[in-house]
Amino acid sequence: MPVRHHLPTIELRPGEVALIGAGPAAADLITVRGARLLQQCDVIVHDSLVDPSLYTDLGCELIDVGKRAGNHKMPQPEINELLVRLAKQGRRVVRLKGGDPFVLGRGSEEALFLHEHAIAVYVIPGVTSAVAAAELAGIPVTHRGVADAFTVISAHPRAEDSPFTIPSFHPKQTIILLMGVSSLPSWRNGFVAAGYPEDLPVAFITWAGWPQQRVVRSTLGRCLAISDQIQAPTVSVLGYVAALDAKNTSATS
Amino acid sequence: MPVRHHLPTIELRPGEVALIGAGPAAADLITVRGARLLQQCDVIVHDSLVDPSLYTDLGCELIDVGKRAGNHKMPQPEINELLVRLAKQGRRVVRLKGGDPFVLGRGSEEALFLHEHAIAVYVIPGVTSAVAAAELAGIPVTHRGVADAFTVISAHPRAEDSPFTIPSFHPKQTIILLMGVSSLPSWRNGFVAAGYPEDLPVAFITWAGWPQQRVVRSTLGRCLAISDQIQAPTVSVLGYVAALDAKNTSATS
Repeated sequence: MPVRHHLPTIELRPGEVALIGAGPAAADLITVRGARLLQQCDVIVHDSLVDPSLYTDLGCELIDVGKRAGNHKMPQPEINELLVRLAKQGRRVVRLKGGDPFVLGRGSEEALFLHEHAIAVYVIPGVTSAVAAAELAGIPVTHRGVADAFTVISAHPRAEDSPFTIPSFHPKQTIILLMGVSSLPSWRNGFVAAGYPEDLPVAFITWAGWPQQRVVRSTLGRCLAISDQIQAPTVSVLGYVAALDAKNTSATS
Repeated sequence: MPVRHHLPTIELRPGEVALIGAGPAAADLITVRGARLLQQCDVIVHDSLVDPSLYTDLGCELIDVGKRAGNHKMPQPEINELLVRLAKQGRRVVRLKGGDPFVLGRGSEEALFLHEHAIAVYVIPGVTSAVAAAELAGIPVTHRGVADAFTVISAHPRAEDSPFTIPSFHPKQTIILLMGVSSLPSWRNGFVAAGYPEDLPVAFITWAGWPQQRVVRSTLGRCLAISDQIQAPTVSVLGYVAALDAKNTSATS
C-alpha cells in the first residue's frame, strides 16, 4: 500500500491487545490498519462471523470463541479472562470481531476489562454491519428528504434484558434492527402498536456481504407473511429508505 | 496483503464509478477494498475532510469538490453532473468521501443519479465517524447494561430542512449528533425541554482521529459553559456511555 500516514503506524508489542473490527463479511472490508495489525500478532481470538480468509494463512495461533453451529459460544467472562491471560504471557494478541468492536457485541466490556488489568488495548474501528448491511443491499440509511436520522437497536432476545424500547415514529427516521429474526412477530406487532404505518417499507438483509446475501423487501403490514424467507443472521431496516435501491454492484459481484 | 477473498476482487473499468468511504481521518482507516480501488482509477473526486495522503501520490487527476476554507463547496447537482461527465468520458472514477458514503453526506443521491444515467457504481462502505469518533475517544456507542441502542442525527442546520426531531428520552439509548456546533445552545435546550436529565453525560469529540483530536466531557446541564472549547468538526455524544473511558491507545498514538 502506498498510503502514508499522518499518524505513526501502530506496532503491536508483546503483552498488548488489538481489538479489531473486521467489518461485515468480506475479508477486504477490514481497514488497512486492522489488516496490518493482523500480520503482527501471535494469537487471534476470533468470532465465528468473521471471514476465515482473514486469519487462516497467518501462521499464528487461532482461538475460536464464537462457535455458532454447536452453540458453544464461550461465555463473555471467560473471553475477558482469556485475553488477559494471553497478554500476560507476553503474547501479541488480536481480538477479531465482526463489524465494529463498539457496536453491540460487547467489545467495550473486553476493552474495559483489559484496562482494569493494566493491559494496553488498541481499538481499531470497523465498518459496522448496522450501516453496511443496508448499504450492500443498495439502501442508504440516510437520504436527503427521506431520512436524516437512524436508530440502531439490538433486537436479540436476551434473558438479562428487558425487550427493547420502540422509538416514537418519525417519518424521516430509519430504524435498523440487528438480529431479532426469532422475535420478528413480537417486534413487528410492537411497531404497529406504536403507530408505525402498515405501508412503511421494510427490508431484511440476510448474510449481508457474503456470497449468499439475500434481500427481502416488504412492508411492516405484510412482512409476517414472508417471515419464512428470513433466517439469521439478518439486519432489518424499517423506514422509507428501505424502498430505495441504489443498487450496489459490489454486493453481487 | 495476503488476504484472500471469497468475493472476486472488483476491477474498476472505464466509465465506471466507485463511491468509496474513506473512514474517519487517518488514511489507514479506509477499507482494504477501498484502498485497492484507489489504485485503479484515473480521477478522484474528493471532499476536504479526507486525508490527502490517500490520494496525493497516486498520479491520477484530483478534483476537490469540498473546499472547506473558502466555503466554495461545489453544489450537489454539479457534483452529480461532474461524476456522470467523467464516467461518460470513459474514465475510471473514484468518488472519495469521508466516513461512510451512505451516512448523511448525500452519497446515496450520487449513486442514484449515476444509476439513472446507466453508469455502474460500486459502493464501498467506510467506517462511519458517527460510531468511530466516540470509539477513538474511548467511548462505546453501546455497552451492555448502559446502552443497547443508538441514534445518529445530523444536527447541521440546513435551510431546506426543518430542525431535527428530538427522540424521547430512554436511559439506555445513546444519541450521536453529527456537526451542529453552531446550533449547540438550541439543541441543548431542546433536549433539556424534552426531559433529558441535566446530569446526562455528554462528550464532544472534535477532529476525531486526526492528530489534533480533542475530547471535551461534560453534562447536558453544564455543557453551554464550555461551548467555547468546541469547534467544528465535532461529533457530540449524549448518554451514559459518554462517561465511560475504554481509553484507546490508537487515538493518541
